[in-house]
Amino acid sequence: MRVVLVGFGNLGRGLSRAFIQKASFLHRSYGLIPRVVAAVDEFGAVVDEKGLDLARLLEAAEKKGTVAAAKGGKRGKLAIKVIEDVEADVVYELTPTNIKTGEPGLTHIKRAMRAGKHVITSNKGPLVVAFRELDSLAKRCGVEFRYSASVGGAVPVIELARKLLAGNEIREIRGVLNGTTNYILTRMTTEGAPFEIVLREAQELGIAEKDPTLDLEGIDTACKLVILADSLLGMNAKLGDVRRTGITRIGPEAIRLAQEAGQTIKLVGIARRGSLEVGPKLVPLGHPLAVGGTLNAVTFELDLAREISIAGFGAGPKETSSSLLGDLIDIHRTLGG
Amino acid sequence: MRVVLVGFGNLGRGLSRAFIQKASFLHRSYGLIPRVVAAVDEFGAVVDEKGLDLARLLEAAEKKGTVAAAKGGKRGKLAIKVIEDVEADVVYELTPTNIKTGEPGLTHIKRAMRAGKHVITSNKGPLVVAFRELDSLAKRCGVEFRYSASVGGAVPVIELARKLLAGNEIREIRGVLNGTTNYILTRMTTEGAPFEIVLREAQELGIAEKDPTLDLEGIDTACKLVILADSLLGMNAKLGDVRRTGITRIGPEAIRLAQEAGQTIKLVGIARRGSLEVGPKLVPLGHPLAVGGTLNAVTFELDLAREISIAGFGAGPKETSSSLLGDLIDIHRTLGG
Repeated sequence: MRVVLVGFGNLGRGLSRAFIQKASFLHRSYGLIPRVVAAVDEFGAVVDEKGLDLARLLEAAEKKGTVAAAKGGKRGKLAIKVIEDVEADVVYELTPTNIKTGEPGLTHIKRAMRAGKHVITSNKGPLVVAFRELDSLAKRCGVEFRYSASVGGAVPVIELARKLLAGNEIREIRGVLNGTTNYILTRMTTEGAPFEIVLREAQELGIAEKDPTLDLEGIDTACKLVILADSLLGMNAKLGDVRRTGITRIGPEAIRLAQEAGQTIKLVGIARRGSLEVGPKLVPLGHPLAVGGTLNAVTFELDLAREISIAGFGAGPKETSSSLLGDLIDIHRTLGG
Repeated sequence: MRVVLVGFGNLGRGLSRAFIQKASFLHRSYGLIPRVVAAVDEFGAVVDEKGLDLARLLEAAEKKGTVAAAKGGKRGKLAIKVIEDVEADVVYELTPTNIKTGEPGLTHIKRAMRAGKHVITSNKGPLVVAFRELDSLAKRCGVEFRYSASVGGAVPVIELARKLLAGNEIREIRGVLNGTTNYILTRMTTEGAPFEIVLREAQELGIAEKDPTLDLEGIDTACKLVILADSLLGMNAKLGDVRRTGITRIGPEAIRLAQEAGQTIKLVGIARRGSLEVGPKLVPLGHPLAVGGTLNAVTFELDLAREISIAGFGAGPKETSSSLLGDLIDIHRTLGG
């Protein structure tokens, strides 16, 4: 399968490493041979219809900060041109998230679909801004559209609901969808430390960003909740539809009281038809949402199975490549490969 | 799809109720119309090629203890005859588990496959005794073979690994696979009560059986571990290959020490290539295996995603019908329905 990578930051590089590491496994297990025919980033592009040498591409990009530095690479704003002109089966849209405009991912995805290419993305921005539009466009263009990595990183939340809980109706979705806030709340619980100290520690470890607003105020969680609501509950929700409270006012006192009651405090996104909410919630110890550290977890409330929960790592380039690769295998299988 | 139900105990009845409840949902969502053309139990059978009236069948069977009591029903040992002679697409094998001989399920499954019928089962017995034989037989006969409900009840453990973690290699499987022992250990932890008291309580609630040996000694967990190892790790394991310790010697002291260390004691089955083990293990609070009550949970250790865990209810007729129905939908989709 001929693949174009748009965006070559952590995720694009992680996926490339997975392609190298997994080449013989993919061929042996699924008869799948991913051939990366182009890679683009904001500074340039490199194209080789016979398939790029990924090890060399990684080396060049890591040394010089752009794929344009690879042999045969060109500098310039080339994303649209590559997406439209290079012959390929699948476009990976892996550029940074902008939750206000969805750009540049939104345009990349639309252009790819209109050019008849299947799209796999990890980018929350386009989905939050225009889920329904993209979903219909994919259908109209007759292409596959996958976005497993946009929610839960490595955790196949959306595919679980679509493929494995098929006999059930989903009544509610509850999720611990942000690793940074989960790390902070977990450390506050295990260490009894105050919020500011733990936040600083998380920033030093690279778990929290310098400006941690998107995480701490529950905006990242709200984005993922919108994607779950739109893709699994048939809603047409936008970020503004989510009632939202962050974790910045959670003190050691609240944590201690929860502990005494056999509970733990988590930042939980809750979606049911007609209602979207993000806020700190008590979760009983022993409940599958009560996962610690940077883990993500999602619980589906269902009419037959009652509750099914899934948990795993919601971030990290290697972990996320599990979902990005899974989507490619799924498209390969869907097309009868 | 024409369906034969072999076994009409709790699971057969739960599945029938799900067929009734979900009829319009299945038709609308998947174009799937399950038509139960026969039901058999140890006392007799009832056949109607136009499709049985499930509400009446349930009523008759619940009143008189056998499907033979339904209108048109016949008494006698009729399972094999029905499996072989009634025209049908899928045979559900839902008879009680015998982990020594696998019978009568083993014979039922083989006969159904040889008669060209797809098979869905919840029955651990045949799988533990003859996984590889049944797996090859299904392939030779060109039929689908599904057994989601045999491990984890409602929790789609096997399908998760096969379908959603496809890019990963599984390095290890760890599972809390028995709801009874999990309930007992959880109550011992939350109440500080001794084993015998909690066991009696569980027996009164119907969570533990009168003879709880299979659960307490880890035999049920070992059976499920064998099925996971054979189906997901390509092993050809038997029950005797599992090193096994039960939970009967866990005292309040051990529970208390674990708690002090931020851990909890669970009966865990651990499978990796060449090694199968069941025994009480410490699990850190906050780990996805540290689920309470009667929940089951399984953690896959993977090369890309690191760890993915899934949890839910491992028993109960309604819950299990989620898996039994999911298998039917999956066969329907696989056959291009």
